[in-house]
Amino acid sequence: MDGQFASATAVVRHDETSWRATIEPGWDIASNANGGYLIAIAARAMAEATGRPDPVTVTAHFLSPGKPGPIDIDVEVIKEGRRLANASAVIRANGKALVSVLGSFGDLTEVEDDLLVDGSPPDLPPPDECVFLRPTETFPPPFMGKVDLFVHPDDVGFVRAERSGELKVAGWFRLPEGESVDTVALLCALDAFPPTIFNADLPVAWTPTVELTTHVRARPAPGWLRCRFTTRFITGGFLEEDGEVWDSTGRFVAQSRQLALIPRA
Amino acid sequence: MDGQFASATAVVRHDETSWRATIEPGWDIASNANGGYLIAIAARAMAEATGRPDPVTVTAHFLSPGKPGPIDIDVEVIKEGRRLANASAVIRANGKALVSVLGSFGDLTEVEDDLLVDGSPPDLPPPDECVFLRPTETFPPPFMGKVDLFVHPDDVGFVRAERSGELKVAGWFRLPEGESVDTVALLCALDAFPPTIFNADLPVAWTPTVELTTHVRARPAPGWLRCRFTTRFITGGFLEEDGEVWDSTGRFVAQSRQLALIPRA
Repeated sequence: MDGQFASATAVVRHDETSWRATIEPGWDIASNANGGYLIAIAARAMAEATGRPDPVTVTAHFLSPGKPGPIDIDVEVIKEGRRLANASAVIRANGKALVSVLGSFGDLTEVEDDLLVDGSPPDLPPPDECVFLRPTETFPPPFMGKVDLFVHPDDVGFVRAERSGELKVAGWFRLPEGESVDTVALLCALDAFPPTIFNADLPVAWTPTVELTTHVRARPAPGWLRCRFTTRFITGGFLEEDGEVWDSTGRFVAQSRQLALIPRA
Repeated sequence: MDGQFASATAVVRHDETSWRATIEPGWDIASNANGGYLIAIAARAMAEATGRPDPVTVTAHFLSPGKPGPIDIDVEVIKEGRRLANASAVIRANGKALVSVLGSFGDLTEVEDDLLVDGSPPDLPPPDECVFLRPTETFPPPFMGKVDLFVHPDDVGFVRAERSGELKVAGWFRLPEGESVDTVALLCALDAFPPTIFNADLPVAWTPTVELTTHVRARPAPGWLRCRFTTRFITGGFLEEDGEVWDSTGRFVAQSRQLALIPRA
């Protein structure tokens, strides 16, 4: 493991059931650490605890914002099965719970053939014709300096206050400096894009994620990932955001859904 | 609380962090208790532990089959916020973990207006023109005697070995004898229908759920619920199944996604 992402998500075993890590500066959005980045840290500890390298399904509930500094990850391995092992984890900073996680981990070195793929990667202009979200102190946030995100020009109308009204965001994702995207980094990719709701007629503001579940179906091939996010329901004060990731070979590799609160001005 | 479902999901507090309940006979599919039924039992304990009546988002991982008999539900309340409280739970039988659960609970007595509904309830013939899945000892399973499921005739070709090839199942749901469907019963509704994959060219067999997440947006109005389940990806040995529930007023009230293993002959 080398590279900026690997280093920023590294964990060190402290005792039988706990790991230590550091929320690195610069991984934040409006001064709160990106949720997918925090999930990736927890997943590193859970992968070690279960002895299984790949997060097959991981659910995180976000409880309090993460700030740069030391964190503890307490992991309980609940079941060790033949194909999957199940564990829960809680990330804490100074004893305060930030994220609670439930996951099933396995080994996706070899997986079965695809039997049904009812969909295709998003149709995107080449990266250099997309909008590169360069980070600033405020908006776009510092986190955008940690990942390479090139968003479809139609989907970033909100940066020009010309919102499309279509609750869709699609774009290219990679880690900078050629760092490869492993299955743990996919957990970050699926929470890296601007919220779909920025294209609705609502305030462009912090959109707190309540819950985020990712399913990883395969290890991505090297190269650019194509990602698509859509929202169909803004009801009861909540919205869902559904994500898909397709690798450079055109293979469907991961799927996500999150539940978020409607942003407030 | 009265009615067969309320009684079969009742929990009794044992101590500060644990509850006791009973897996009632008859709630099984191929002799394993229905997953949504088990989630509902855990949710009753988590609602009591958090003091919040409604499961807003609940994720369950299925570890071992549940058989009729006594169970313990150990609940840890992780955070009590203003709007939501977060808890984890594990259902155990004789010390063996059956289901691990993570949930955020709230109070959906009053919810915000719907701002976007990109979809509509499934178009269904009236219940008496749908296929009523009457239970047998084997298939359809005993569980079908505990809920009233009327499935769209196009979606149950598998009972006649005439599969549609379309990975879709839609139908009507209610609890028998006029018992009202509360938000906890929605967790069961979203795992009550035959798997979409029964309409694919694969064995009609036990389709083990790895993980199931439900988002509840509103309390359903009294009366029939309309449900729709679809699958887009059968890849890497897994499939997802996405569910939606619409109430008798045509309102979108809940959404689910589960990750399951491909059934084996």
